Amino acid sequence: MKALPLGEVYQLLEPGPVVLLTTSRQGHRNVMTMSWHMMVEFTPPLVACVVSVADFSHAALRATKECVIAIPDVELAHKVVGIGNCSGADTDKFAAFELTPLPAEAVAAPLIAECFANLECKVVNTRLVESHNLFILEVVKAWRDPAHKAPKTIHHQGFGRFVVDGDIIQVPSRMP
Amino acid sequence: MKALPLGEVYQLLEPGPVVLLTTSRQGHRNVMTMSWHMMVEFTPPLVACVVSVADFSHAALRATKECVIAIPDVELAHKVVGIGNCSGADTDKFAAFELTPLPAEAVAAPLIAECFANLECKVVNTRLVESHNLFILEVVKAWRDPAHKAPKTIHHQGFGRFVVDGDIIQVPSRMP
Repeated sequence: MKALPLGEVYQLLEPGPVVLLTTSRQGHRNVMTMSWHMMVEFTPPLVACVVSVADFSHAALRATKECVIAIPDVELAHKVVGIGNCSGADTDKFAAFELTPLPAEAVAAPLIAECFANLECKVVNTRLVESHNLFILEVVKAWRDPAHKAPKTIHHQGFGRFVVDGDIIQVPSRMP
Repeated sequence: MKALPLGEVYQLLEPGPVVLLTTSRQGHRNVMTMSWHMMVEFTPPLVACVVSVADFSHAALRATKECVIAIPDVELAHKVVGIGNCSGADTDKFAAFELTPLPAEAVAAPLIAECFANLECKVVNTRLVESHNLFILEVVKAWRDPAHKAPKTIHHQGFGRFVVDGDIIQVPSRMP
């Protein structure tokens, strides 16, 4: 993994890919599948996300105030769905889905070696957690795997149906 | 446009398409381009979005607490970028980009006839507007154009570069 400038993080999340979210609490690592996230600020990059109280990761995220957002490409689609269909309450998902945890630099939550990008995050605002399970994260360190040249991400349409990245188009624009 | 069940709204927004957001204030309609949005709840459908104070639409959204989220397909990409590169402060964008406003049912903001889906929204939470320009909307009425059979949406990667919807894959899953 190679460091990615924080100012470029929005270019990865703004398109709306399904991501994985890892946590680590008292030595217990976990990973969940997440589609409800958005950018909130370019730099420092702020990301809002919804992690339900029904998700096992909710308590860990709330207690540790740290996580990693890992972005999988389409090759990992079956694992992404598998991760979303079981719980860290009774499963070591890193083992079950043969994902390789890598140490992060600024947080205890692990990076995922198989993902083409990893974003180390700290929770910076919890005002809407009680009412809406909505956390605001600051990305404090970002990583990109240069070996993944042109990863195709996946976008969830419900019940395991995904649209995969297709053609790229470029329209002249002065907006970031 | 045909009514879409509110429980299906997340299937349109969760994949992360670029959308248009319309407002109407004191008879002045406006439309902006938006990529920073996410689902917050399935039903009633709640959507979080960031509308910057730098956007002309911010004041209208804040004052009227109403808007429409319209979803364009790839055929509208040039208009989507054009809309994002000018301001409602000095431009009637509906006229400039030849978009057809249609009356909504529950809000004053107009639907956009050329978009394959339109979501009528009311602002239900403004607690993070001051700090993060983050509004929470409730979708109160949803519309889908049945003439658009399989629209391909676009996902913004920055500076007018978009990834267009490609293949659809289906992985067995019991999660919505």
